[in-house]
Amino acid sequence: MKLTSQKTDFSKWYLETVKKADLMSYAPVRGCMTFKPASYALWEKIKELLDQRFKATGHENAYFPMLIPESLLKKETNHIEGFNPELPWVTEAAGKKLEERLAIRPTSETIIGHMYSQWIKSYRDLPLLLNQWCNVIRWEKRTLPFIRTTEFLWQEGHTAHATKAEAEAETLAMLEIYQQIIEQKLAIPCWPGRKTPLEKFAGACDTYSIELMLKDGKALQAATSHFMGTNFAKAFEIKFLDQNNNLEYAYTTSWGTTTRLIGALIMAHGDDKGLIIPPEIAPTQVIIVPVGPAKSAPHVHEAAEKLKQELTAAKILVKTDLSLESAGWKFNEWELRGIPLRIEIGPRDLEKQQLVLARRDTGEKQTIPSENSHLIIKKILSEIQTNLFSLALERQEKACHVEVECLADLKKETDFFGWVLGGWCGDNTCEEKIKAETSFTARNIPTNPPCKKEYCFACGSKSKATVWYARAY
Amino acid sequence: MKLTSQKTDFSKWYLETVKKADLMSYAPVRGCMTFKPASYALWEKIKELLDQRFKATGHENAYFPMLIPESLLKKETNHIEGFNPELPWVTEAAGKKLEERLAIRPTSETIIGHMYSQWIKSYRDLPLLLNQWCNVIRWEKRTLPFIRTTEFLWQEGHTAHATKAEAEAETLAMLEIYQQIIEQKLAIPCWPGRKTPLEKFAGACDTYSIELMLKDGKALQAATSHFMGTNFAKAFEIKFLDQNNNLEYAYTTSWGTTTRLIGALIMAHGDDKGLIIPPEIAPTQVIIVPVGPAKSAPHVHEAAEKLKQELTAAKILVKTDLSLESAGWKFNEWELRGIPLRIEIGPRDLEKQQLVLARRDTGEKQTIPSENSHLIIKKILSEIQTNLFSLALERQEKACHVEVECLADLKKETDFFGWVLGGWCGDNTCEEKIKAETSFTARNIPTNPPCKKEYCFACGSKSKATVWYARAY
Repeated sequence: MKLTSQKTDFSKWYLETVKKADLMSYAPVRGCMTFKPASYALWEKIKELLDQRFKATGHENAYFPMLIPESLLKKETNHIEGFNPELPWVTEAAGKKLEERLAIRPTSETIIGHMYSQWIKSYRDLPLLLNQWCNVIRWEKRTLPFIRTTEFLWQEGHTAHATKAEAEAETLAMLEIYQQIIEQKLAIPCWPGRKTPLEKFAGACDTYSIELMLKDGKALQAATSHFMGTNFAKAFEIKFLDQNNNLEYAYTTSWGTTTRLIGALIMAHGDDKGLIIPPEIAPTQVIIVPVGPAKSAPHVHEAAEKLKQELTAAKILVKTDLSLESAGWKFNEWELRGIPLRIEIGPRDLEKQQLVLARRDTGEKQTIPSENSHLIIKKILSEIQTNLFSLALERQEKACHVEVECLADLKKETDFFGWVLGGWCGDNTCEEKIKAETSFTARNIPTNPPCKKEYCFACGSKSKATVWYARAY
Repeated sequence: MKLTSQKTDFSKWYLETVKKADLMSYAPVRGCMTFKPASYALWEKIKELLDQRFKATGHENAYFPMLIPESLLKKETNHIEGFNPELPWVTEAAGKKLEERLAIRPTSETIIGHMYSQWIKSYRDLPLLLNQWCNVIRWEKRTLPFIRTTEFLWQEGHTAHATKAEAEAETLAMLEIYQQIIEQKLAIPCWPGRKTPLEKFAGACDTYSIELMLKDGKALQAATSHFMGTNFAKAFEIKFLDQNNNLEYAYTTSWGTTTRLIGALIMAHGDDKGLIIPPEIAPTQVIIVPVGPAKSAPHVHEAAEKLKQELTAAKILVKTDLSLESAGWKFNEWELRGIPLRIEIGPRDLEKQQLVLARRDTGEKQTIPSENSHLIIKKILSEIQTNLFSLALERQEKACHVEVECLADLKKETDFFGWVLGGWCGDNTCEEKIKAETSFTARNIPTNPPCKKEYCFACGSKSKATVWYARAY
């Protein structure tokens, strides 16, 4: 059964694709889902790549408790106000009512702030650079597989520094790591930038985000990095003796990305046949399928297994599909699952010492000699990676509208596709007006905007910042 | 400040060691703790080693939701009875009382059983071999860092099979993987065996365990593997059409190990100076410390860094300690943290082109030529690994008493150290009597007992099984 086409109904296409490509199952708790092996393997790849970068930049992993006493959560006023509507509470345990309610972490600034205040005593204890990989829960009203689920998996980095400058540099350095992984490995172009005050993290001084454009023209916040100033240090008494023996508050940061990157990957590259996974992040880069009249003959299966071993030795992630299904069925199935490259191998190919390759991104087929095939295959995988990024960039460029000058113009277009770049006077009411009248929200103030906007998109007065506005997930 | 000696007070030694070696901090929720980088790095190593074995034997990772509706938990009667006293309940979320209480998983048989019943339709879907790495919560009465904490990290494998024989083979195969990792990497000798009915997992047909002996002579259950028969399949309707088109119940298994392995490592090898980490599991195998009158001279620090690079190139996990503390302070600190091998490097050593090595396990020092030092160092690390296992085995053999014939004899010895091997008539009341009168519990019925016991340890009648009895964590 074919997928609904993206043009007909993008949401329906997405929901069908995540089910049919065997990525997830709905769970019996509202908004919760099971990450099946095909999606969890993507998360493991993302984890591995990020974890390497975090460690290479001096961070260590730790694990903090999931249950947070209510009193601790309340210490930073803005923070609790921001998260309170989404918190699940443990009120009973082991048959008894608890004396104090315990929240399941929606994020860990408070429990980590509490621990940091005990660990940090002197400038010698700084910087403290920790990260944790864990699950969190936010009781969201509207959920969507991978993109917004009640429980999700993520990493959250939490650092403490002696100076403001160092903490600010950390905030931006981590944003850059996200950008590198998302652009180089997930092949999705990024818009890094700063959030407006209305959109920033509850308790932060500054929030930076990476915004992505998906194939339906909507925006997705893919990662955030927060500079907390001394807000959490003051709430949790994170103080240190500096080199002159003065007691000072530390500057803290936090930064995170989540399993929503899996959703981003699907909606940034997928097509009417299903997923397209960029080779750099694909748990399986190549699928070998026997074809032709004698496709089940032992010598064809042997050749497929031998080829698999050769490619594995060349560090290509490869599987064979020797099941009894028809070749056509297998082609569809592996296309649906987004494997970047298919190799067809049949009796005639063996005779001619050749292989037939089919690219998932372009659908192109080509025949190559079997000898040293890994060299050509690696080259093609690299081309697929580059091509996916280019295609996404091209789509983004077409849909990033810098020519729409004001809210009135935007409202004229009923079926507007993409984002608009608009000026902002600095007044929250202008941002709120845009949201109320178009459902476009301020995504971020891009670090490198395509151009600068002189007048506020909403009120037309002098602009203080240039902002991406878009419908967002 | 010195640690309390193990002889004086083993528990006190343990609690001091986990704090001073910077492994953990207590958290503000009863029985919860923070895994600091030094202990989390051990868990990452254990995870990596186990994960490789699980994948190499055909298992895939997935992630199931943490919150389990009460109705689902109640489906397997023995299971809910076993876990009910330890469950924490979420009763409110997003400002509202929930219609149904949600338990935080103590283990995931129920939610996974629910999902498997949807996924498994035909014999072609079997075996289904999944594992997940996650956190779980059990509201335990008495807690101890790493060994028994309210929240802990673990992996839980859950498999479904078409035949009983296949599921039983899986149960034992996974137990063997635990044994391999614990013996070969953690250097702790294992006693694999089957649990008595009183000690088996709530809902299982058979539970197998790996029991370890710690330096205080007490037992620790380090890993378990459960054969569920069709108990969970019947409770959750996990049925499949077999090759003859008959609808049959699947046979399921589950198996897990936890962060308590970190506690096992500490209590199996540690001494009065602190931790001793076996090289195969050590995140840092070698610490390089500059020594001598000119230990802070640039050329000494350069030599230390150069040596670090050489050893890193040879895949030895090495760090330098170039801080301003005294060499003596550093020696104590790295001994406390259990780094298997220390290299001292000073101006005189540089002149003589030599290095001084100090083993953590024996305290022995030796001088070796600097050229190609990685070869000797690798050999010594391997010797340390072997020696730690031998020492643990020797201790175990001394403390595994096969000569104590009956409960009366055991009760005579007020300060009994170690385990006893005793017969068991098969009657639960005999097992309960031993527990009540000595606090020794049935650890397991070892797969390969040192000898067979003909008469029941408690009642003296004909024995049906030979059992390890011990005080346990």
